[in-house]
Parts: sequence; structure tokens; C-alpha cells
Amino acid sequence: MLSINKKITAVRKPKPTPEAALLFGKVFTDHMFTAEYEEGKGWYEASILPYGPIEMDPATMVFHYAQAAFEGLKCYRAVDGRLLLFRPDKNFQRLSDSSERLCIPRLDVDFALEALTELLKTDQDWVPNTEGTSLYIRPFVIATENSLGVHISQKYKFMIILSPVGSYYKSGLAPVKISIEDEYVRAVRGGTGHTKAAANYAISLKGQEKAEALGYAQVLWLDGVERKYVEEVGSMNVFFKIGGVLTTPDLTGSILPGVTRDAVMTLARSWGIPVRERRISVEELFAAHENGHLEEAFGTGTACVICPIGCLSWADREITLSGGQTGELSKKLYDELTGIQYARRPDPFGWMKEVPV
Amino acid sequence: MLSINKKITAVRKPKPTPEAALLFGKVFTDHMFTAEYEEGKGWYEASILPYGPIEMDPATMVFHYAQAAFEGLKCYRAVDGRLLLFRPDKNFQRLSDSSERLCIPRLDVDFALEALTELLKTDQDWVPNTEGTSLYIRPFVIATENSLGVHISQKYKFMIILSPVGSYYKSGLAPVKISIEDEYVRAVRGGTGHTKAAANYAISLKGQEKAEALGYAQVLWLDGVERKYVEEVGSMNVFFKIGGVLTTPDLTGSILPGVTRDAVMTLARSWGIPVRERRISVEELFAAHENGHLEEAFGTGTACVICPIGCLSWADREITLSGGQTGELSKKLYDELTGIQYARRPDPFGWMKEVPV
Repeated sequence: MLSINKKITAVRKPKPTPEAALLFGKVFTDHMFTAEYEEGKGWYEASILPYGPIEMDPATMVFHYAQAAFEGLKCYRAVDGRLLLFRPDKNFQRLSDSSERLCIPRLDVDFALEALTELLKTDQDWVPNTEGTSLYIRPFVIATENSLGVHISQKYKFMIILSPVGSYYKSGLAPVKISIEDEYVRAVRGGTGHTKAAANYAISLKGQEKAEALGYAQVLWLDGVERKYVEEVGSMNVFFKIGGVLTTPDLTGSILPGVTRDAVMTLARSWGIPVRERRISVEELFAAHENGHLEEAFGTGTACVICPIGCLSWADREITLSGGQTGELSKKLYDELTGIQYARRPDPFGWMKEVPV
Repeated sequence: MLSINKKITAVRKPKPTPEAALLFGKVFTDHMFTAEYEEGKGWYEASILPYGPIEMDPATMVFHYAQAAFEGLKCYRAVDGRLLLFRPDKNFQRLSDSSERLCIPRLDVDFALEALTELLKTDQDWVPNTEGTSLYIRPFVIATENSLGVHISQKYKFMIILSPVGSYYKSGLAPVKISIEDEYVRAVRGGTGHTKAAANYAISLKGQEKAEALGYAQVLWLDGVERKYVEEVGSMNVFFKIGGVLTTPDLTGSILPGVTRDAVMTLARSWGIPVRERRISVEELFAAHENGHLEEAFGTGTACVICPIGCLSWADREITLSGGQTGELSKKLYDELTGIQYARRPDPFGWMKEVPV
């Protein structure tokens, strides 16, 4: 395996306080991981360096053709002081899969985990202590060949940067209002919607802007073909409890296979709750609400873990879910998942990986 | 209008020779244009600087969320020595439209033209002289806020870089083989396919790679909804002459409104050739070929101007167009357009703008 060179900074940045008030992704730690790739040479120059700017030629391909993919995961300080990662192998496997779709050379999952571990050891004092806080981890790969021809880049840079983040919910789990988008489309089957391609996020900004202008927190995306079936909410997966069954859109090629999504299904099944992955139309959701069968809804993602949905708007209709409150299952899943992540509760599925510091 | 600061380099790079052999987008001139944008402040610090690397924080949003758009146009050295641009206002208007879709602040078209003019004056000796060569112009805008939250960037950088390019056709206009893609999708209505979003290009690499692996030069994209109607070829617009009518897909929201596409339709109409913009299914194309009505096909774009299509493959079928040669209309359009661009022929539509040097 590639050996990792280390260059440790002499100047440590002050840790921001209070930890719980930290905004998402604004402050970065003292170091970063970088590695380079060149066609015919493979990955090389794996290094931990002082966090700082990188020099890029204006013709660098990522600026022009967005050949880039990323991941997002968190390092938690457990109640007993250990540093824990939540299923990090899943994230690096997905980065590898995203890379494949984007014609980026795959990274070895074990090497990426090793790189992350070394970086976390170096900056371990940056993992915050306050309840609900964590160290957000952003691995990403970008095309770095300097060339304007539209082609697969011959050079890449893989980086990992770390950012301490405060509690997602400043005053406890709270439901959000969601607007169903019928004009803009996030992704379509045959495209890159099932990956964490940087491209997906640029495409989604307009719909999000529109939802916010209408007073909603997030947008619920519909499929790009029939514009009838729900896909994702903002940049989260989405779940509905319909007639006692926990239901989520199946992975048909334009939906991200979320790590939290997978954990939620596993937990629910372990509790004896029936789980189904299938197509869900907006018509069905509104009809189920009408009949009293739409019991609750929530988004899942690394940032929020569980994001309860209190209100759903579609064209000129608006429905209130769980009486506008956090649903019972949403709360139970949130407590269980965060309990596992901070080691307040047992980890029966072996999801947590300890960082050896 | 924003004033432009100039910092001229003391070190001039040697001009590469022979000019005609120059590869596309590999060599850049001595200077570049840059301007910055910040929410609440607008565009500022418009500058012409020595061409060179820019410093970017690893958390710069363009690396993570691909919020970026670009343009491509050319500066031609006319046969009488003048420097000419082909409809540059159309490119900057489209950059403004692409920006709007991507939630990037629009650039003033006149200001962008002024910036380009000043840069071209500075690097005018970089416009090559050899027949068929030109100076490729790449304006682009990228999100530069340092933040990992998925949101509209508060900061941007607008740049223009210049690259001398050789002849697209080293030995005269030559037809290419095209493969119709039925697995991967470039864009869907509701997305960003009608803009020059960087995102579109990352998404399209996989289909292009597949076509090349099968021995084809380019991919012909189908619509993302029904997978029946042709949209674009590679990163070009596509035209078919069917029963005497020049036919091209209409702009339904996932097709780029090409500047060359528009010029081709204008020229054809001026020659009395009927032109239609409408949906064109692959079935129709193959049936028209069967009946002898599919007379020729070609792509249009800034790089090649006209790219004749000699062969079209779909699943296990392959058809030869114009006997595998360059079609008559393709040749006529190419000669006329390049004739206008280099001022070998009159410019009845007022397309060429002289750069005042």
C-alpha cells in the first residue's frame, strides 16, 4: 500500500467556540490529506499536509467539465471518549462507485480508510466534545489535467478535509416543510443521480432556491421521466410510513444509495416493522393522507441523521403530517442511530469503527 | 462599467510551431482575464494578469458542487489580417442564461465583451496565421465560496483564457462514425442540458468512452424521457437532411441552443432550403434511410464548424450515410461558414465582429 508522507504544521489554529454553535462546513482543521493520480503511473504522493490552498491552473478540467465526486461522513466522540466512524467502508465504496460512473480511476477502499485514519490521528483534538457535535469528513476526487478538450482527465487529486460541526438541531429534533418540485429535475435514469457526482448538486440548486422562496425548507424531487414518483428530498433519501409499512423509493438508478437510508431499513426491520422499497407516486401519498394511512415522513442523511417532515406541498395542495410534529418512528430512529453513533447504546450491527488514536 | 486593471508579464512564452499541428486547448497565451464576485458587492477586481495558477482553498464550492458554466468561441485572423469574432454576443448571452439556471449571478454581456476585447488586444500576436487555425476563447464562471453546505455560493470568479488551436481537419473535411447511446443519458428536460453547465460534460463522459471503445468517434444522445428522440451528437448539435428538408431537434429544454446551429439554419434558409426544428426519432431516421430519404447528416459546433456523419450505429444496426463521404450540403455549409469567419467571403448577416487592435 502507498506510504503516507507527513508534514505537520507548526502553527495550530484556535479551536472555535462554542462547539455546539459551529456552522456546517465553514471551519477546517490543521491538516488535510492529498494524493495525486496520473494515467500510467497510478496514485502517488500520498501526503498529510498543513491545511491550505492548492494551486490550480485556470485550464484545470474540474473547473470546466465538473469531473468530480465526493463523500460525506462523520467522526463522533463517544461518551467514553473514543473516536468512532459510522460505516466508513460504505462511504469509500460509494466514492469508488461514483468514480466509476464519472470515468475517474477508482480508489482502493482500504487505502482511503488508512488515509482517513492517519489524518484523524493527526487532528484528533479537533473532534468536538459537546453533545450533538462531530467532525465532518469530506473526501473528494477532482480532475486536474490542464486541458480544454472534452475528454476523460489523465490526472486527478484525491483529498480529505475535516470540519468540526455543531448540532444539526439546535433545540431538538424539529419537523420541516417540504415542497414537491414539478418543474426542475435533479437527475434521470441513465445519468449520475445514483452517485455523489458534484454535477448533481449544481443541477439541484435552482429547485432548492425556488422552494426556499416559497417558504419551504427543502424540495422533494420527482423522477425525470414520468414526474410522478418521489425520489429524494433535498440531498437526503426520503421515507414514508404508510399503513404501518416503512416505505422508501427503490434504487432505480437516479436515487443515491444512502448509508443512513440503509441503516434505517435495517433498524426498522430489526424492530419488526415491515419495510418496502418501491415506486411511490405523489398521488398515492396524497390519497394515503386523505385516508389517514400516511402516518409519518422523514428524510435521512449524514448531516441530520433523521429529518422529520411536518408538511408537504404540491401545486396548490398542502398537507400536514404527524400533526406537524416529529413522528414517533422518526424520533425512535433518531434516538437509536445517534445513540449508536455516540456509543450511548449498543451497536448490534457492528456499524461503528473505532479510530485507533 | 467596471474598469479593467492590467498587469503585463515581462516574460513572453515562445509561440508553438507548427501552428496547424497545435492540439486543442493545451497551450495558453501570456495573459488571462479575471474578475471576482461577492454577494452584496457585485463584480469587482476586473483584471488582465499574466497567465498562471490561481490559489484555491480545498473547500472551494466548485470542487464539491460543480456550480460552474462556460463558453467557447474563436478569434480568427482574416485573410486581410484583421481579427474577427463570430457572433460573440450570442456566446456571452448564453453564458448569462447558463448562469441563471445555475443560480450564478449573471454577467453583463457588454462588460464581458469589453473584457474579451481588452484581453485579445493584449495577446493579439497569439492569434495564429496558418489557414484553418484560430485562437480558442474560453470564458468561464466558477463558485469560489469556501463552504461545504449545499447552497448557492456567495462568491464567484469569472475568467477568460485563450488557447491557439490548429486546424480541426488536418486533411480536409472528413466524416465520422457515430453510435446511438441507449443506456446513458446526457440530460433531461427540467435539468441543465440546455445550458453550458460544467455538470453536463462530466455526466456525458461515460457514454463517450463507451462509443470510443466500440470504434465510434462520437455518441448520439437520445432524450432522457422516451429514449426515442435524438438530441445532440457528442457536444455538438445535430442535423439531418431528410427528403430535401434540413431537420434538427427542436429546443425542448435538454438541447444546447448552439450558435453554429443557428447560423446553419439561417444560411440554409437563405439558400432556399426548407428547415424544420422538430422531434426526430431514431426509428424515423432508420426508416428514412431505408426509403432513401436520409440524404445526409452532420454535427455543428464551434470546434469543428461542421462535422459530417458517415455512419450511424444503433443496437445491432449500422447505416452508411452519403456513401460514407462528406455530403454536399455539409461541404457547402462548411465552406460558407469558414469563408465568412476568415473573411474570404462576404458576411451578409453581420455575424463577424472586428477586434479593434
